[in-house]
Amino acid sequence: MRLRKISGAVVRRLPLYLRVLEDATRDGDKELMSSQELGERAGVSPALVRKDLAWFGEFGKQGVGYDVNNLKAELRRILHLDRDIPIAIVGVGSLGHALARYFRRRHAADPGFHLNIVALFDQDPEKQGEVIDGLAVESPEMIDARTKELGLRMAIIAVPAEAAQEVVDRCVAAGIRLLLNFAPVKLTVPDGVHMVNADVSLELQRLAYYLRD
Amino acid sequence: MRLRKISGAVVRRLPLYLRVLEDATRDGDKELMSSQELGERAGVSPALVRKDLAWFGEFGKQGVGYDVNNLKAELRRILHLDRDIPIAIVGVGSLGHALARYFRRRHAADPGFHLNIVALFDQDPEKQGEVIDGLAVESPEMIDARTKELGLRMAIIAVPAEAAQEVVDRCVAAGIRLLLNFAPVKLTVPDGVHMVNADVSLELQRLAYYLRD
Repeated sequence: MRLRKISGAVVRRLPLYLRVLEDATRDGDKELMSSQELGERAGVSPALVRKDLAWFGEFGKQGVGYDVNNLKAELRRILHLDRDIPIAIVGVGSLGHALARYFRRRHAADPGFHLNIVALFDQDPEKQGEVIDGLAVESPEMIDARTKELGLRMAIIAVPAEAAQEVVDRCVAAGIRLLLNFAPVKLTVPDGVHMVNADVSLELQRLAYYLRD
Repeated sequence: MRLRKISGAVVRRLPLYLRVLEDATRDGDKELMSSQELGERAGVSPALVRKDLAWFGEFGKQGVGYDVNNLKAELRRILHLDRDIPIAIVGVGSLGHALARYFRRRHAADPGFHLNIVALFDQDPEKQGEVIDGLAVESPEMIDARTKELGLRMAIIAVPAEAAQEVVDRCVAAGIRLLLNFAPVKLTVPDGVHMVNADVSLELQRLAYYLRD
């Protein structure tokens, strides 16, 4: 059961809340957290924390706060992070290669980390066959077969801009509906496919605030 | 004159507000915008818009809204985006290469876009000398000299994880204080240096919300 109207802005904050709760339990056994503290750590107002979470149920007790372990479990369930998600990386240049290694090591080290890179693709024949943390790079022609075989649900697009649309089309045709795009180019996807663009301009503009004369 | 206490969460939203205003003026000549509309378009509450902007002055008129052109100019000034910012990219693998091309073309096409990539570095001798949109790739040993010569203020780190700390140290030693890091690895910088990590885990976790069974 899911409300359809939940905005992207709310969804964007849920992983932040989850991270705050995970950090809090890693540092010690914190049992309760107020919306005030959760908001401060996540960089949003307590009112917004309460409003965001209210979309999904009643998790907190007034004057007591949230049960940290319970809310953590609920957020994982809401975000489908309570089980492994099979993910592909398309393009293993310096970025794709680094992401593959980072995520595969993190997944191996932490049983609670469910982002699972299980397929790597690159159109460069010299890269095909290369093994990155136990996983061989394959031709993008294998995307369709591997999606069916491995149940791929997400793809990280780390190819050059001019190759990105073709790669995305191939992923979508194979049935992958969730895409994280690093190619700095505007891509088209059909309805029902969610694509997040890693937005480098916004990050640089944010950094520019800290320029001094 | 600048207040010291402005939180990172506020700073993070300023480029979003600026983008909303830029989009609004690109689509037609919009003169006024309410905090309601600005908030909706940026995905935050109107109260938060008002609170964020109040840190920097009184821009809106009650019951009238913000003067779009004025607020746009003020945000550009606050973010130091009212003049060119010389930026380096270190690592021109598929990501660095794509970013170089994208930003150089955008800067050439739009006189109001002040993120200016003026130096490219890569430690691979085969990449050195390669010209990307009119700019030659150089050895990272040139970072110090080019920082002084070109007044580099920011660097985008797009090298593999294991090379990232060394590259960051070199940038910091040269006097670059603003860094956007794409290497998925925890890096150390001294006080006074701002580093933003492109956080891929959070983006993937956000996408996972849209998984269907």
